[in-house]
Amino acid sequence: MPNDPIAKPWERITSLLESEDADGLRSLLDELGPADTALAISRIGHDAQSKLLTLIDPTDAADVITEIPEAQAVDLLHHLDANNAALIVDELDSEVRADVLSDLSKGEAEAILEQMPAPLAEDARHLMTYAADSAGGVMITEYVAFRQDQLIRDALDDLQQNQEKYSDFDVQYLYVTDDDGVLVGVMPIRSLLFAPRGRAVRDVMIASPIAVPSDATLDDMRDFFKEHGYVGAPVVDAEGRMVGVLRRAAVQKAIADQGQRGFLRFSGIVGGEEFRSMPLWSRSGRRLSWLSINIVLNIIAASVIAMYTDTLEAVIALAIFLPMISDMSGCSGNQAVAVSMRELSLGLVRANEVARVFMKEIGVGVINGLVLGLLLGGVAWVWKGNPWLGIVVGGALAANTIVAVTLGGALPLLLKKLKLDPALVSGPMLTTVTDMCGFFFALSFATAAMSQLA
Amino acid sequence: MPNDPIAKPWERITSLLESEDADGLRSLLDELGPADTALAISRIGHDAQSKLLTLIDPTDAADVITEIPEAQAVDLLHHLDANNAALIVDELDSEVRADVLSDLSKGEAEAILEQMPAPLAEDARHLMTYAADSAGGVMITEYVAFRQDQLIRDALDDLQQNQEKYSDFDVQYLYVTDDDGVLVGVMPIRSLLFAPRGRAVRDVMIASPIAVPSDATLDDMRDFFKEHGYVGAPVVDAEGRMVGVLRRAAVQKAIADQGQRGFLRFSGIVGGEEFRSMPLWSRSGRRLSWLSINIVLNIIAASVIAMYTDTLEAVIALAIFLPMISDMSGCSGNQAVAVSMRELSLGLVRANEVARVFMKEIGVGVINGLVLGLLLGGVAWVWKGNPWLGIVVGGALAANTIVAVTLGGALPLLLKKLKLDPALVSGPMLTTVTDMCGFFFALSFATAAMSQLA
Repeated sequence: MPNDPIAKPWERITSLLESEDADGLRSLLDELGPADTALAISRIGHDAQSKLLTLIDPTDAADVITEIPEAQAVDLLHHLDANNAALIVDELDSEVRADVLSDLSKGEAEAILEQMPAPLAEDARHLMTYAADSAGGVMITEYVAFRQDQLIRDALDDLQQNQEKYSDFDVQYLYVTDDDGVLVGVMPIRSLLFAPRGRAVRDVMIASPIAVPSDATLDDMRDFFKEHGYVGAPVVDAEGRMVGVLRRAAVQKAIADQGQRGFLRFSGIVGGEEFRSMPLWSRSGRRLSWLSINIVLNIIAASVIAMYTDTLEAVIALAIFLPMISDMSGCSGNQAVAVSMRELSLGLVRANEVARVFMKEIGVGVINGLVLGLLLGGVAWVWKGNPWLGIVVGGALAANTIVAVTLGGALPLLLKKLKLDPALVSGPMLTTVTDMCGFFFALSFATAAMSQLA
Repeated sequence: MPNDPIAKPWERITSLLESEDADGLRSLLDELGPADTALAISRIGHDAQSKLLTLIDPTDAADVITEIPEAQAVDLLHHLDANNAALIVDELDSEVRADVLSDLSKGEAEAILEQMPAPLAEDARHLMTYAADSAGGVMITEYVAFRQDQLIRDALDDLQQNQEKYSDFDVQYLYVTDDDGVLVGVMPIRSLLFAPRGRAVRDVMIASPIAVPSDATLDDMRDFFKEHGYVGAPVVDAEGRMVGVLRRAAVQKAIADQGQRGFLRFSGIVGGEEFRSMPLWSRSGRRLSWLSINIVLNIIAASVIAMYTDTLEAVIALAIFLPMISDMSGCSGNQAVAVSMRELSLGLVRANEVARVFMKEIGVGVINGLVLGLLLGGVAWVWKGNPWLGIVVGGALAANTIVAVTLGGALPLLLKKLKLDPALVSGPMLTTVTDMCGFFFALSFATAAMSQLA
């Protein structure tokens, strides 16, 4: 263990950087788990981060880049010069390489690609053309393929000669193509051991293997691996040519990442990612961009109240209940939004089934509206000793709960149909409408019952 | 394709069920992807679901159970009699089996376990003792282990003799234990092919393999697979005895599921799961349990307004801005909550670093508070032509944004330290405090500036 093991990891990194102790740094990074590495790196400045990555071997630096969260990795590469960045990017797995290059600015990525060996750069450029959440974006290109007319002997020789290159690959299966690169077969690596060496690969392979198209969505990929027990599967382009290998674990990871980004967008983090190591102005600005839209929507919703100032002036107690009606309806609506988003992502409901969701939610809306309305109405009645205030407040909450629950359930489906992001848009849209309706119900009911209230 | 391919899948299932056409059902289920299967099953009644599962082979029924979401699978088994359920549960993978049994009521699980072959039941009971999100809860028990003093010849014979049993296993590695079952080695299955048959397994194995403890958390497991490139790893108990195999993909899936449940809890779905095929009363009741707590918190928060009715009566315009201050502060706070939950889950911040998060959030709070305060204050000023109203409203929103952002950032850390669930508790707690503070700021500022406002 290098020097003081009681010091915090980032303090140890800082002191090792000062003494330019590359061996010490490597053994410290080996000792730290991925979470501790990410934590420690987030606590040292950009200059120290760049110095760290250039002091250790590119292979070790690539391990660090792979271990830490992607946004942090991109930030690190962004602060390195293209030369050093290219040395590290060379050592990454093909999928991680394409991901980080895609997340850098076009200029930065180009500068790094120009420093990379031509075949690697070409492979990376090709992978970057796929959408991040498509099979092409999730697959790796580290796989071994033979042509169908090669002999088993040649295949074995190739494995021997390229031992070093293939040693990084996670090879359990070999793929077989025709002369145009079209996938025609697959074989477990162990079948090479049993096959007569003079036979052609095509005689040993399992023909017509199942493959995933390169434009398959995450949902398609999840369904594929639910249906088939495989650990991995070949990916083919529109012409059936083999382009990569999709691993079950990579698909699950992409689904988990997508969920995390969705949660952050749902909470108003535009872009779906924010770390506190990002610059203050960028964090503040991105949060503000969403808040500014919200405040405008809030002003629109509150303008309903402005139309009823006479009623409010006469029954000032209503002012106490308006924020409650707004907040409670938002809560009820968000529950329905969350269930719809969950059912959509699991395929249990489809975007065109708004009527079904409405029918399923109206029951919940009526029950919960009645219970919450009775509760809040009772409180209002007891507090002011006026049953009519209870009826107005409770009635408004009950009616608005029904609106919020049915709208909340339907909204994600409608937004998906309109190709808008339900995670980002559902919340603000829902609260604007339910606020307007809630204020309108409470204040118009009160206006109607004015003679009993004032 | 069985009869009318244009009919909706659930209509085709219903008509095949009426004619008791088991073959037709099987080929229809084969043809449907997992998402379509889940969708179709959610659209037929419980009687039809039970009839479907008993009409097809238990193996096919087990495939269905594995393909559909877990909560749906549990609901299906819940409506089957124990005998038929046991036949299907027998055919499940060990991990899925333990999961669905754990989610059934104790009595139901026991009734099914009693019908199962003793070794399977014992294995399932053992797996059910592990926490669902621990390595023991995510691992499978389908693995092949040999004792270290067995000969290679015996190992090969064992593989041959148990070919059928092992064919369902995803075997790439064999595990080696001592006589007490303590894990002492591991070997790739192909190494059996090269080893002299008269040697002992211990001479061929890779000794002292890395293993995951059975009580490792999901974070531990994620870090393990980030650090090691393996597709799977052995799991050992506190005494080092091998108890199962953890697959990378299963860990990623558990992380994705955990994220989904967290999102639902964050939106007020207690228990983290709701499908619209669940009974109305149970859906409504679970949502109400969370809403009831919220309405009580809302009443507490609104009581602040009740203390200032004189001020409100004098400046009725304030009533329009109170819901906006409440809503906007909630939005700002939730952004900070989401970033903290993300950083906590990635290990980029620790539960005891409240001071660090506070320092990182106060900057964002001040900037966003100033911008939003100026915006809303400007609107108030222009609307009523009174700059003092703008100062009161804008000042209150600015001050409360700072409270909301810093509190929102700190809350998940504090809750995690107190072993409370940040997903479920952060939201209600945050909005209660920010509502109270927001109302207090607006109304006390207005009381102080009353001479300029009225």
